[in-house]
Amino acid sequence: MKELTWKDPEIRHELARLKALKPFCYGLTNYVAANLSANVLLAVGAGPAIGTAMDWPAVFGRHAHAVWINAASLMSCGPEDIRLAARSAHEAGVPWVLDPVAVGAGAPAYDAVVKGLLEFRPTAIRGNASELIALAGGQGGGQGVETTMTSDQAVPFLENVAASIGTVAAVSGPVDYITDGRVTYAVGGGDVRLTQVTGAGCSLGALMAAMLAGAQDRMMAVAAAHAVYAEAAERAQPAVGTGSFAVAFLDQLSLLNPLEE
Amino acid sequence: MKELTWKDPEIRHELARLKALKPFCYGLTNYVAANLSANVLLAVGAGPAIGTAMDWPAVFGRHAHAVWINAASLMSCGPEDIRLAARSAHEAGVPWVLDPVAVGAGAPAYDAVVKGLLEFRPTAIRGNASELIALAGGQGGGQGVETTMTSDQAVPFLENVAASIGTVAAVSGPVDYITDGRVTYAVGGGDVRLTQVTGAGCSLGALMAAMLAGAQDRMMAVAAAHAVYAEAAERAQPAVGTGSFAVAFLDQLSLLNPLEE
Amino acid sequence: MKELTWKDPEIRHELARLKALKPFCYGLTNYVAANLSANVLLAVGAGPAIGTAMDWPAVFGRHAHAVWINAASLMSCGPEDIRLAARSAHEAGVPWVLDPVAVGAGAPAYDAVVKGLLEFRPTAIRGNASELIALAGGQGGGQGVETTMTSDQAVPFLENVAASIGTVAAVSGPVDYITDGRVTYAVGGGDVRLTQVTGAGCSLGALMAAMLAGAQDRMMAVAAAHAVYAEAAERAQPAVGTGSFAVAFLDQLSLLNPLEE
Repeated sequence: MKELTWKDPEIRHELARLKALKPFCYGLTNYVAANLSANVLLAVGAGPAIGTAMDWPAVFGRHAHAVWINAASLMSCGPEDIRLAARSAHEAGVPWVLDPVAVGAGAPAYDAVVKGLLEFRPTAIRGNASELIALAGGQGGGQGVETTMTSDQAVPFLENVAASIGTVAAVSGPVDYITDGRVTYAVGGGDVRLTQVTGAGCSLGALMAAMLAGAQDRMMAVAAAHAVYAEAAERAQPAVGTGSFAVAFLDQLSLLNPLEE
Repeated sequence: MKELTWKDPEIRHELARLKALKPFCYGLTNYVAANLSANVLLAVGAGPAIGTAMDWPAVFGRHAHAVWINAASLMSCGPEDIRLAARSAHEAGVPWVLDPVAVGAGAPAYDAVVKGLLEFRPTAIRGNASELIALAGGQGGGQGVETTMTSDQAVPFLENVAASIGTVAAVSGPVDYITDGRVTYAVGGGDVRLTQVTGAGCSLGALMAAMLAGAQDRMMAVAAAHAVYAEAAERAQPAVGTGSFAVAFLDQLSLLNPLEE
Repeated sequence: MKELTWKDPEIRHELARLKALKPFCYGLTNYVAANLSANVLLAVGAGPAIGTAMDWPAVFGRHAHAVWINAASLMSCGPEDIRLAARSAHEAGVPWVLDPVAVGAGAPAYDAVVKGLLEFRPTAIRGNASELIALAGGQGGGQGVETTMTSDQAVPFLENVAASIGTVAAVSGPVDYITDGRVTYAVGGGDVRLTQVTGAGCSLGALMAAMLAGAQDRMMAVAAAHAVYAEAAERAQPAVGTGSFAVAFLDQLSLLNPLEE
């Protein structure tokens, strides 16, 4: 299994590419994470638009450089909006990321909508272990939006999901794993306080979309999103508590320079 | 009237209990306060889920350790969602907190929905003086989400509300009061800048829910939420302005140690 | 063209007036920007209420001191809510601000709703160059919520819009321009990192509304919102990255003293 970090030139290359493209990224996400997700994208040089105002799902889903869909966006739109955005991206060949937040936590109607999105073949999927196991048809045992499994336990399920639907699947945890069902990358590092900042996981889905915009190597693009996240989190470690950690994390994200020694 | 602060062992005991339980707390709240509310819960070790995606209100309302309902969540869901969450919590014996934000401010249809939630017997209610007086049937004279009365003026109304519907009622102000209609606690301290951070009051409702999860003594649990808030706010006082005060408040909340000397 | 900054007594007078009035400002805005917008208003001493809960659009639209409507609020309400708030403010003589975010970016149904709001004669309009050019019937060429034109290019269109619908039009950019079609003010300064903080532009719309509450001189009130913003941004410049810049910006906004030497 290949291990990747910010120190690897391939990772920095992906960030340099993002900064050159300045991709317009359209997201459907929940209102808890929306602000942080937009600020994460702005910090690295992407241009976010979020939400399902009128005909935005069809128009922006088709015209964006990349799309991310966080299933908890269903808290402020209907299933038809979310499906329309996914369909529009899929039909236009726009890369899109699915974050099936809280799938498998016990809400069957919600789960059905989330699983129904697989029809539109997400370019990549991200989540915690419980969510990805549930998405693959296993018993993930999630409790609300929290995981009760480790990222290691999710890897076989992850490879299954990725292979069966032809996507790149990524799981967050103490070590993050990224797989297309054949090859698997591991990205370590980060800081446990990322799990104490609401929306940090959801915002990683947004960053994955930005990295996938115009990407030649989708596995590396997804790995880069994780490695950039982990590096910014490590550089934010001097923060004294969870509030200033979130601020320092955004600062460090905005300061990451792909050309630095 | 008993006065309580962070220095009292009963208060610290409640926080220690919360940290051991790590309760899953489900909230319906407004999108202005949702991010801070989730971060407040994460800072003390609780696990939040927020919003009305599909069948979440029925499922999470029943399965959470505690629920909080901020009436301004009606800005992104319908009355039926909010009633379903309240009903689900009530029927399953899950403690739930009602925050009747802006009730009595002149919007009769909104007020009717808020008052209708009393049918599901909230475990606790919180608000500013205008809101709680209005909820008790008096003239609170609120202006939007701001109060025009003091917390002292609200105490008799508060005792009335608490006794008549069998709940714990809490009012925020320079001094906070918590009552079940027979006994009343006072919690002082805090920092006036808490009123200059949007959603700080709403997020206190979330913390009350987390404290009520598995609580033996509901009055003490609600008092603990207020005393923990006041202590974190006081420790955040060196902050230079309202932006860094909010950050420092979260930091201090995440650092509060119930075992410290 | 008159240039204005924080150093001008007319500008400080407007902020002093706002602080004395403590206006209740009602906003319909998107959930990405809602939190920052409320915190901007609280930082200067205004009292915000946000969102379309039940009958709030009609009641608060009529009873607030000022109203701001950010068209992207359509991501969590319907066109009828947004029209009702605009109509209520207009009929009650309450000053209101229109922020036509992302108009002209390719979504015709959305654009039609935004343009339809002009029927209710906004007191002021704000946006980036692409948006204001599109609103005036030109080809703005916006990409999502980002502009592809400069504020200088927008000035003739701006003067057109302002004159034809009898409003004060303001465009943000390296230099901000404010015009009623006859007189034009320029406000320089600020910090480019304001464009890297999500919702900073939307929150300026909220501050414009607060300044317009009870204003004698609407051009000066709108100019004051821009000059106050620019001054707070300049004072926040020592911040190391985009995360702490946003925090420092709020701090400086809360510390701005209209009586200082």
